[in-house]
Amino acid sequence: MSAIDDAARELSRLPGIGPKTASRLVHHLMKGPAEDGLRLGRAIAALVERVRPCAQCGNFGEEEVCQVCRDQERDPSVLCVVEGAFEVASIEATGQYRGRFHVLGGRLSPLDGVGPEDLSVERLLERIRTAEGGIAEVILATSPSVEGEATAVYLESVIRPLGPRVTRLARGIPMGSDLEYVDGSTIVEALAGRREM
Amino acid sequence: MSAIDDAARELSRLPGIGPKTASRLVHHLMKGPAEDGLRLGRAIAALVERVRPCAQCGNFGEEEVCQVCRDQERDPSVLCVVEGAFEVASIEATGQYRGRFHVLGGRLSPLDGVGPEDLSVERLLERIRTAEGGIAEVILATSPSVEGEATAVYLESVIRPLGPRVTRLARGIPMGSDLEYVDGSTIVEALAGRREM
Repeated sequence: MSAIDDAARELSRLPGIGPKTASRLVHHLMKGPAEDGLRLGRAIAALVERVRPCAQCGNFGEEEVCQVCRDQERDPSVLCVVEGAFEVASIEATGQYRGRFHVLGGRLSPLDGVGPEDLSVERLLERIRTAEGGIAEVILATSPSVEGEATAVYLESVIRPLGPRVTRLARGIPMGSDLEYVDGSTIVEALAGRREM
Repeated sequence: MSAIDDAARELSRLPGIGPKTASRLVHHLMKGPAEDGLRLGRAIAALVERVRPCAQCGNFGEEEVCQVCRDQERDPSVLCVVEGAFEVASIEATGQYRGRFHVLGGRLSPLDGVGPEDLSVERLLERIRTAEGGIAEVILATSPSVEGEATAVYLESVIRPLGPRVTRLARGIPMGSDLEYVDGSTIVEALAGRREM
């Protein structure tokens, strides 16, 4: 197989990149300086060679324990539970969260045969039980879908007996959106969660 | 800089890939088997190391002369002139064209200071003048934009004196589209170019 076809095939394995986009990217790389493509190739190789899940929270990092878990400035008594490491990155990008994380590795989905034993639920409970100084609050930040919701309900039922406050992210109208384009169930949640001004 | 940030930055240099998409791709690569990422990295490096423009037509290939120019089954008397190698790939993908190509390397754009001397126009004329057996037809397949159009008009004026027939791709309603969504100038072209059934 030619280098062109091979690169296009590998790129089109990425999510959201079809054969046409892959071909366009390949042509972009061929047109540009070779050094750009070499740097991209090296960066991807270094990524998958060096990055690994954090032994504590499951977030991606380059050390045994990730940057967030190593950061002594952060509040170790607050855990934010997310489905994947991508959500850690989204929350970290805001720069407003000062607690730690726990990455579940998915959400409960009985139809796909994903039960609590397929997620890092046991590790989460273990962390709560053994945390030095204790865990004061667990914020459930699973996705606002039926399955994410079910996962949150299940987690609440197993975490609360251990002591911590269990909260979840607020539902409501997203900032900058037009009410006209917000779906009905979001408006219902926003009404139910309305706050004094 | 961390391997994660580095890979995201390199990916976001690609056209159509913003910081969010880059971050999503990085997380996809981290979640999958490392071998997938290594293969992608190697494919991109091999691409930019091995691929170069064809000495004859400017199309990308891995040899001095590209696969299309080497193919003895193809009609050497027909040249299809395109702006970039990407268009060669699009036309080749149809499997219906049996002539050869000439890649201009862009289109005339006086506002951006792109004149005929910045494109491979002189090489095209040279190919037409010196082709063994002569060139019977030059198909202009520049883009259907104002600049692509101006490029075609200019090329026609310099090619015709050398003898070949000069044609251009038909304009009209694209297959599978809904007339309702086709712009007015395309409809005008489709009417002007209507054919007996």
